Amino acid sequence: MTDARSIVSSPAALRAQIRDGQFTGPTAGHGGDALQANLVILAGDDASAFLRFCQANPRPCPLLAVGEPGDPTLPTLGDIDLRHDVPRYRVWRDGALADEPTDIAALWQDDMVSFALGCSFSFEDALTRAGIPVRHQTAGRNVPMYRTDLATRPAGRFSGPLVVSMRAMPAADAIEAITICDRFPLAHGAPVHLGDPSEIGIADLHAPDYGDAPDIRPGDIPVFWACGVTPQAAITAAKPALAITHAPGHMLVTDIPSGQAERRLTGVHTG
Amino acid sequence: MTDARSIVSSPAALRAQIRDGQFTGPTAGHGGDALQANLVILAGDDASAFLRFCQANPRPCPLLAVGEPGDPTLPTLGDIDLRHDVPRYRVWRDGALADEPTDIAALWQDDMVSFALGCSFSFEDALTRAGIPVRHQTAGRNVPMYRTDLATRPAGRFSGPLVVSMRAMPAADAIEAITICDRFPLAHGAPVHLGDPSEIGIADLHAPDYGDAPDIRPGDIPVFWACGVTPQAAITAAKPALAITHAPGHMLVTDIPSGQAERRLTGVHTG
Repeated sequence: MTDARSIVSSPAALRAQIRDGQFTGPTAGHGGDALQANLVILAGDDASAFLRFCQANPRPCPLLAVGEPGDPTLPTLGDIDLRHDVPRYRVWRDGALADEPTDIAALWQDDMVSFALGCSFSFEDALTRAGIPVRHQTAGRNVPMYRTDLATRPAGRFSGPLVVSMRAMPAADAIEAITICDRFPLAHGAPVHLGDPSEIGIADLHAPDYGDAPDIRPGDIPVFWACGVTPQAAITAAKPALAITHAPGHMLVTDIPSGQAERRLTGVHTG
Repeated sequence: MTDARSIVSSPAALRAQIRDGQFTGPTAGHGGDALQANLVILAGDDASAFLRFCQANPRPCPLLAVGEPGDPTLPTLGDIDLRHDVPRYRVWRDGALADEPTDIAALWQDDMVSFALGCSFSFEDALTRAGIPVRHQTAGRNVPMYRTDLATRPAGRFSGPLVVSMRAMPAADAIEAITICDRFPLAHGAPVHLGDPSEIGIADLHAPDYGDAPDIRPGDIPVFWACGVTPQAAITAAKPALAITHAPGHMLVTDIPSGQAERRLTGVHTG
């Protein structure tokens, strides 16, 4: 057995351990600098509507790859079999959490469609490399997240408020963070708001709806990014008969180097 | 005689009228969408030091082109003869304004070097095209400008505070403006600050050091860009024996379409 806390540096080696049931822990820090993704699996009409929802809301739902119906592979992201290759899944029935298995082969259906969605890891790495403080990481906390009064564009049964994550930083860092994140449309892109939280319906910055309380220093301004919790909340609210997602922190590890993700997957040059 | 208020749409035709002394007015709105530039002419060691000053301070002093010593042309910007092709010049002797001629052929020296510097016209056009309000234009005022407590990097006798221009706008527009202006490094690039003016030494936003008082609406945040007044103030303070600049509003009109300036002059793709 491999200790989940020992670092596995190759994404393919990590996925092989996950596939064999030897690695069932959180993926942060594993798989080298490979892009990690949020996973959503839906069936039939729910899948069609969710694809339209992602297309209509690219900031919170940046699509890295969409599987063919019934096909558990995502070849543009690597040699991936989604029935086995995520360390822990969540199974939702009628919007309620039903199970947290490490393998979903027994649940796979021939009308299931898988969605790999970008997450904030990529741009947080880029911010850190640029010397911009990512305060929740330094403090060893989860990023604070908030429901806003901004609505997503509905598609089929999927709708609901935009959920945002917040990172506080000095103004000059905020400007640089905006220019950096604009180059990562597959990792939520540029922020959606900065400054006064009440303008987007956030009553108390110190009481996030998800994650941990923020670390805000004198001179910091709050900067808000569209967050991957948005589609999760929309799925829970829509109560599809069956939905499968990754468990929090237990991501889909791809073969794409983070720094090359935008260029390889979109043709957008990341500079 | 051509009325200076009639629009001349070709930059070459406009420069021909300027060269013949038929056009002596402000250039805003003339020459089609051609890039307009700030002009600085210095001689000998002053020119060498000013080039180093611009290199060290690219945000306030974005260099579009630098002439060869003694050569009054700038071939990368068009068929330009700087002894005649700006509608009105300012001549500075020992830091004091000495004259405002429409031709400087009699003053030209064989050790003079000309500097064409980018200005904010390019990015303001891009903001307007993106639907972002440029409040001083709507109000028919000059942009408000402020001396800050941020120092430029000195070079030779050139030094002094960074001067910034301010444009107030809602937060979401500020984020988009940052992503747009980052693509225009030759027009001062991304802002240098946003939010609290006191953080960069501005005591009263309603009392600018140059230009007109700002139009700030509820929900606006102030956004600050490095400003071309910075090198002008540095030159005045340095008191070189002789300096020649354009007169305010009477710019050097180039042949470069504004939208293509970054790509043509730097190889940077403007997206």
